[in-house]
This record gives sequence, structure tokens and C-alpha cells, in this order.
Amino acid sequence: MRVVVPFAAETPKTRLESVLTPAERSAFARAMLADVLRAVVEAGHEPTVVSTAPLDLAGLELPGEVAASASVTADDRPLTEAVNARLPGGDAETTTDEPAPVAVVMADLALATPDALERLLTSTADVAVAPGRGSGTNALVVRHPEFRVDYHGTSYLDHRETAREIGATLETVDSFRLATDVDEPADLVEVIVHGRESNRAPACLREFGFALDERDGRVDIVRNEDCAAE
Amino acid sequence: MRVVVPFAAETPKTRLESVLTPAERSAFARAMLADVLRAVVEAGHEPTVVSTAPLDLAGLELPGEVAASASVTADDRPLTEAVNARLPGGDAETTTDEPAPVAVVMADLALATPDALERLLTSTADVAVAPGRGSGTNALVVRHPEFRVDYHGTSYLDHRETAREIGATLETVDSFRLATDVDEPADLVEVIVHGRESNRAPACLREFGFALDERDGRVDIVRNEDCAAE
Repeated sequence: MRVVVPFAAETPKTRLESVLTPAERSAFARAMLADVLRAVVEAGHEPTVVSTAPLDLAGLELPGEVAASASVTADDRPLTEAVNARLPGGDAETTTDEPAPVAVVMADLALATPDALERLLTSTADVAVAPGRGSGTNALVVRHPEFRVDYHGTSYLDHRETAREIGATLETVDSFRLATDVDEPADLVEVIVHGRESNRAPACLREFGFALDERDGRVDIVRNEDCAAE
Repeated sequence: MRVVVPFAAETPKTRLESVLTPAERSAFARAMLADVLRAVVEAGHEPTVVSTAPLDLAGLELPGEVAASASVTADDRPLTEAVNARLPGGDAETTTDEPAPVAVVMADLALATPDALERLLTSTADVAVAPGRGSGTNALVVRHPEFRVDYHGTSYLDHRETAREIGATLETVDSFRLATDVDEPADLVEVIVHGRESNRAPACLREFGFALDERDGRVDIVRNEDCAAE
């Protein structure tokens, strides 16, 4: 299945600015993107990065089989428009055959595994959604040619409503791994605890000096300041 | 399967004190407990509430079939001790037969559904864990007679390590519903978005005047102050 992975190349992960410098945020965002692309390829699918600015995939140093299956295209439109153009029946659809299903997986799902993605990608519903916290839509598969996304606000609830309006069946996929988009400092704990051992993003955080910190029974992250950038 | 549901009856949900009065926190905690008990019974299992103080289940006004399957026992020991006593081979085990598997499901898993619980409860691993955010352990099933819990700090990582030490197989169950324990004001959004329609906890929040609030593309809860207690 074609899997679209939207990526904000220019100002990634601004909500991490209290703990990471701009250069670190960029490196960390690219590490998460590389991990997501690898999970998609290991699940047997072909990812297309839709980047807000030109992006050199070679710079991600992807493993060979991942690099061979992944492609990139630049689209400076807002997220919702860029995704809708690529859904079945959208403007950027290049085939004239029966529209093929399209998946959309966010680039900051650092906990994504092939198993978790498969649970989403094997759904036979017209629309399958993996919600994120706060009524977000972290990943979805669209088979219905009339369905369009709107990522603003309570997108999970809005996508349910849209499916109902066009008579499309909708399945909600119950996955903690796909529900965890990495936006805020507290989310870094999840990357360290649940990131796959061979993944780039947890390695990147450890390289930056982050470690788990237990205090009063609550778990947070702490940084060795020797590793912090100036 | 016997399912232990630990419940802090006296000072429930203190981290919600910025948005709920003590009486509201108590009512909301009981509503979540009732929802969890119903989900356990609908999944075909018998819940035992292990309460820090005497608790009258009749006060929960459970549906008939739920009330018929649920029981309650008081145990004022700390969570970890009270749970360990009830695991296979623990002090409070009453049978002399082969130890039967025991599940432990937290009382604040307001998003739990029979389907999500079944994915956990049908695991054949010696230990199956549904992690919560921050390396917590929200629900688990124990079949191995030597396994003991420790809920302090990074319990999910610690439980993995314990399983390794005693040579027990461990499965991690990937569920957003089971990963969402309701501790903090931001978690109330999830109860309103994902709580089952027939559940008590979302109805309780709506009765208190809570609704979703979209601002700057972020989703939060807002309260109609006419509904707030004095």
C-alpha cells in the first residue's frame, strides 16, 4: 500500500523548544522520520515522504532496503491540503485505474512498529483511524474516494463525523504505539521507554544526554548538561 | 479469570484537585470504577475490587449482571503489597490447587472496553502487561507463581526486568485504551472523546459541566461554571 508520511522539514517540533535547540530538534525529527520509514518498509509497504521543503533522503542514511522503497516529494501546502491531494480520488492521484487505498502516517510516531502499523493497514474498513491524544489523528487508511481529512482541532471526532456523512465504514485502531506522537517534552519519556532498540530516535536522545529520572514515584527525563549544545 | 481491581477509596484522584472538588473526585472515581467493572464482566470475567477502605458496591448502582459477578474486599496495605498478596502463589491465595492466573486492572482505566481487555486477558505469556504513559503498568495478567509487582516509578521497565530475572515470558499489549489512566486534567479530554456512550464517567463529566474546547488547533476541556460545586 502507498503510505504518505507528511514531514515539516523547516521548523520541526517547535513544542520541544524548551528542551532542544533548533539543530537538535531538526536532528531528532529526522531520526523519528527514519524510524517511521523503516517500520513502514518492514511492514511491507512503500512510504512517500511529503515534505514541506525539498529533502534529501540520502541525508537520512536509511538502511538499503528502506532507501530502495522510500521516495520523497515536496509540497509546501498546509498539511490538510497536501494530504487530501494524495488520497484516493485526490488531485495528485496519478493513476487512472480504480483508486487504490492510501495510508497517512505521521513522521513523529517514534514508537511505531511493523506490527502496530499492520493492525492499521490490514483494516478493511473504508476509513481506519489510529487516534492520538487530544482527539488527534496520528495515522489513517483511506479506501473511500470521497473521504477528505481535516487535521485542525478535534480531527479524530471530525473524521468520524465525515465518514458518517459520506456513508463510509470507520474502524478505530486501538494502539498506544500509534497514539503516541512525540510533540512535547513529556513524550520523550515514551521514546526512551518504548522505542525499539535499533531505532534512531532513542539513540539520538541518549546521545543528547537524556535519561529517565524517577522522583517521588513520577517518571520524567533529565539531561546531562555536558551533552547539551551551546 | 479472576481480575483484581485496586481502588483508592479515601483520597481518590488527588491530581485532579485543580479542576474537581473532593466530592466530585470521589463521584468521578466511582463512575470510572463502575465502568471498569462493567467492561471486565462484559469480557466474561469476575472482578474483585480491592479497596483501601470498606466500600459498598451497592452504592455504585451497578447493572444487575455486573453486580452479580463483582465482589469487594478491603485491604489497607499499599498498592504493591495488596496486589502481590493476590497474585498466583501470594499470601491471600485461597485455593490449594495449581495457582490460577490473575489479572490486575486499574480502576481509572475509563477507556477500557471488553475488546481491549480481551487482548490482554487472552495472552498466553507468563506475564502480559499493558503499559501506561510514563512507564506505568496499567493492567497485567500473571500466570507465573514467582512474579511479583512493584508499582513504584518505572514499573513497566521494572516488570520487564523482573520477568527476565525469573525466566518468565513477557508480552506487551499495545492498547491506547489500556494505556490511558485518568490522573490529570488533560486526561479528561480522552474520557469525553473515547469513553463508551453508555459509560458513567463521561456522563459524570458532562453533568459537572465539562465539554471539549478547541483553541489555536489544540484541544482542551472547558467547564461551564454554573455546574461547578461550591
